[in-house]
Amino acid sequence: MPYTPINLKEKLTKVTEQWQPRVVAQLNDYQFKLAKIEGDFIWHSHPETDEAFIILSGELDIEFRDGKVHLSEGEMCIVPKGVEHKPFARHECSIMLIEPIGTTNTGDAGGKRTAESNIWI
Amino acid sequence: MPYTPINLKEKLTKVTEQWQPRVVAQLNDYQFKLAKIEGDFIWHSHPETDEAFIILSGELDIEFRDGKVHLSEGEMCIVPKGVEHKPFARHECSIMLIEPIGTTNTGDAGGKRTAESNIWI
Repeated sequence: MPYTPINLKEKLTKVTEQWQPRVVAQLNDYQFKLAKIEGDFIWHSHPETDEAFIILSGELDIEFRDGKVHLSEGEMCIVPKGVEHKPFARHECSIMLIEPIGTTNTGDAGGKRTAESNIWI
Repeated sequence: MPYTPINLKEKLTKVTEQWQPRVVAQLNDYQFKLAKIEGDFIWHSHPETDEAFIILSGELDIEFRDGKVHLSEGEMCIVPKGVEHKPFARHECSIMLIEPIGTTNTGDAGGKRTAESNIWI
């Protein structure tokens, strides 16, 4: 019987590095990824896809060129494809991302903060 | 500035009927739907797509022909496409579904328990 619950809090204990999303589930060609983030990220966009953020604990700002959204635990936001954004967390927060397989954290910007996109925990 | 948080608890207060999923967000051609369910549903499958269940409150069993999975708050499960399943909740539980636009709650089974699939709250 291959159907087992995916417990998000338990999976989060396996996310040991900040800014390194880890895959916990796959839905068709989309993946659910957990990440812990703190501080400032880089401006980037995903030209091919929207990106969903769900806040599991803590608080996250997503800055846009024309404003920002402040997200708390139990809130979510969809960043539309092609829209530049920059996540920022004053304190460590835990999030779930939903996006197509192969989507990288730095999108079109690339660079040294690009994480592996397909590591399962 | 069109980016506003989607607060899942607040949205749940707008889900006033059981077994009637309501859309709260869209990611490319996928939708995030909230639902309150209690009791037994019908056996069905979704021949074209996987389906994600995330438990927001309460507990949910998803029965399969060869077993079942018991899900509690903070847990999720992917039902693979084409796999027959039957949700059951002893007490009312609140869930979020992620699935392609147009996916209906009764899938290939259809019938009188089929809900509108694209009502936003």
